Amino acid sequence: MVRRNQPLGRRAFLGLGAALSGVALGARQGRAETRLASPPADAPWSQSIGAGVVDRPYGRPADYEAGVIRRNVPWLTAGTESSISFSPLQDLHGIITPNGLFFERYHAGRPDVDPEQHRLMIHGLVERPLILSMHDIVRFPSVSKIHFIECPANGGMEWRAAQLNSLQFTHGMISCAEWTGVKLSTLLDEVGVKKEARWAMVEGADGAHMNRSLPLDKCLDDCLVVYAQNGEALRPEQGFPLRLLVPGWEGNVSIKWLRRIKLGERPWYTREETSKYTDLMPDGTSRGFTWLIDAKSVITFPCPEKPLRGPGLYEIRGLAWCGQGKVRQVDVSIDGGVNWQRAQLHEPVLAKALTRFTLPWRWDGGPALLQSRVIDETGYVQPTIAQLRKQRGVNSVYHNNAIQTWQIKPDGSVFDVQLS
Amino acid sequence: MVRRNQPLGRRAFLGLGAALSGVALGARQGRAETRLASPPADAPWSQSIGAGVVDRPYGRPADYEAGVIRRNVPWLTAGTESSISFSPLQDLHGIITPNGLFFERYHAGRPDVDPEQHRLMIHGLVERPLILSMHDIVRFPSVSKIHFIECPANGGMEWRAAQLNSLQFTHGMISCAEWTGVKLSTLLDEVGVKKEARWAMVEGADGAHMNRSLPLDKCLDDCLVVYAQNGEALRPEQGFPLRLLVPGWEGNVSIKWLRRIKLGERPWYTREETSKYTDLMPDGTSRGFTWLIDAKSVITFPCPEKPLRGPGLYEIRGLAWCGQGKVRQVDVSIDGGVNWQRAQLHEPVLAKALTRFTLPWRWDGGPALLQSRVIDETGYVQPTIAQLRKQRGVNSVYHNNAIQTWQIKPDGSVFDVQLS
Repeated sequence: MVRRNQPLGRRAFLGLGAALSGVALGARQGRAETRLASPPADAPWSQSIGAGVVDRPYGRPADYEAGVIRRNVPWLTAGTESSISFSPLQDLHGIITPNGLFFERYHAGRPDVDPEQHRLMIHGLVERPLILSMHDIVRFPSVSKIHFIECPANGGMEWRAAQLNSLQFTHGMISCAEWTGVKLSTLLDEVGVKKEARWAMVEGADGAHMNRSLPLDKCLDDCLVVYAQNGEALRPEQGFPLRLLVPGWEGNVSIKWLRRIKLGERPWYTREETSKYTDLMPDGTSRGFTWLIDAKSVITFPCPEKPLRGPGLYEIRGLAWCGQGKVRQVDVSIDGGVNWQRAQLHEPVLAKALTRFTLPWRWDGGPALLQSRVIDETGYVQPTIAQLRKQRGVNSVYHNNAIQTWQIKPDGSVFDVQLS
Repeated sequence: MVRRNQPLGRRAFLGLGAALSGVALGARQGRAETRLASPPADAPWSQSIGAGVVDRPYGRPADYEAGVIRRNVPWLTAGTESSISFSPLQDLHGIITPNGLFFERYHAGRPDVDPEQHRLMIHGLVERPLILSMHDIVRFPSVSKIHFIECPANGGMEWRAAQLNSLQFTHGMISCAEWTGVKLSTLLDEVGVKKEARWAMVEGADGAHMNRSLPLDKCLDDCLVVYAQNGEALRPEQGFPLRLLVPGWEGNVSIKWLRRIKLGERPWYTREETSKYTDLMPDGTSRGFTWLIDAKSVITFPCPEKPLRGPGLYEIRGLAWCGQGKVRQVDVSIDGGVNWQRAQLHEPVLAKALTRFTLPWRWDGGPALLQSRVIDETGYVQPTIAQLRKQRGVNSVYHNNAIQTWQIKPDGSVFDVQLS
């Protein structure tokens, strides 16, 4: 299998034209389906006048893209108000997730917050407690950063080897955007942190009053209080008009509809860091405060939703990310992890952001087991699911960053499998 | 005026808290409107359950953002099918323009192209002419790049000193996105360029069959044939399912709904590069093929749509860009160009992409004349409108990259003025 499904270097891919000069390249390479006979007839849309500008003052996708949507798994939660929708990674390109397709996670549904009435209170162990309006917040020095957000339950359904046969459902609880706002350290400078403060409690204005404890060091390091995503105001699903962004840490600490930051000496042990978002270990104990998103990657093409269309040349594509900083390296295997090839990382490779990788591949129609494996800048290597289970058992649903295997069948279809 | 409106360095901004320890900071600084008395009452949205996930499988902005839309100028063109809509720069953040707010320019309206039927024909002086389907095109090695597109008529209404008093209408024909597709050079490798080829004619599938001539060198340098913007399929307004992207050159050469590329020895002198998109000079001659977008910048806050809310600390914000490569430096003046302060450039600073700049500023309530001036990596300095008129007269409507002046009135309102 290894020899029959050789990955191709970039030079081989681009050199094919010269090697086959004068041949009906499409048929030979299996990549171009039609060669030139006569020009295509003028399509109806080329013979008419289309819609005018500001026909849609705020645009929307083509009707042909109607299937590219967020989806949920009805049996996963009791209701949709405390549930998840998954981003369609199989249809996404580059590293930016468009705002309309950013994954959702609510703990008491999506509130409809009036930005004129919204306030952020900062109090506790501070010199000068403050209540800030949105007008106040946008006046502080601004920063824009591209960062991912991942729910720690992403991949949670796979712990006991559920095979969902869907990239969207196995990995779709991650998205990435350009966020704009104020450094949390700037706001904390403004209120003055008392020297005994060690922790911050951050709280949302949703019906759950969703709240978490964060170490002050992280708050002062790289946390942002953001009001915009991908250039425009935050979407309601993402915390309009204000959310916290905790780069590289599990998504639930990036509190949406942020209304309160209280500094204290100890963590608060809130419901969402005791009853939930802890990792139940084999011996019955729980790991708490497991905030970090460890390095993870997945092949986004081919995948169950995007099978191969017959033998020929393809580009394997995928996404890699890590909460520690930058992705250093991604390797791809087509034989279930026996042999590995270095994938190309695409610029920009940014800290705590999605990174796109690709590898050219000629598929000969035989079986294959596709995997990707990321190594982050600390040297950490993405583990197999067997390695994770050995360490953590099968009780946990959080922080499954295991290598994903896609099995390619001879008809080009793709299946979610777990290798023993 | 200069002394009264001193720009502030970053250290001064962040140091204010310490300097005013224990004081009701909000009132003193004019930045925080409310200081802490008692916590705000629970808002209605904090006492109820909100909407569930996939309530909107493809999301949309908050209803409160209904005014953040593309707009057009009805008197500018005979109809909306061959017109322009302007992006609301006054409401945008960072460097990514969300797809729903990307400016529009049509020559025969927006066609509704079926991606299954769409074809790209590459012919003329090539070894192996090809017709490619969308299925073919997505199989080639992919690249993603963040680039701006600007219409060369952006600022055209200002040549004769029209004062529109609107950032959206003076500068809104520019947007920036992450584009994904295939290098044009990859496709040209596939068909084999004949050695006598020097130019490419690129043509759209819209009713105008919009077409332009491009030097082959530019095609082989950095042009892309793209099918995605900001992670999802191209929007219909931007050429769904396929457009050309010519980085750093005037927007109309980035042909939308791209259906044909023909290589030849000479340019085609199409309607849109003879009758239009040429610059009429004072002596009656026309400059043609003026593709390059010269370095340009504009202050996006404050601006006519976003006045100042009383004296106090602010952050002047703006955008800079250049077709030659990267922005090297942006200077800001608050006295109409007499004195200049270096602004901070925000990462990432990418070639042929928008670059965000900021400068902290304490406004004392007096009059001010705000300007920004960019210098690109070649050393080119953004000119004044007087310098441009001296060189090119007042007949042209294209390639106005002049320094913009915003006049601040004592009530904080902002006006579009031209200094003599």
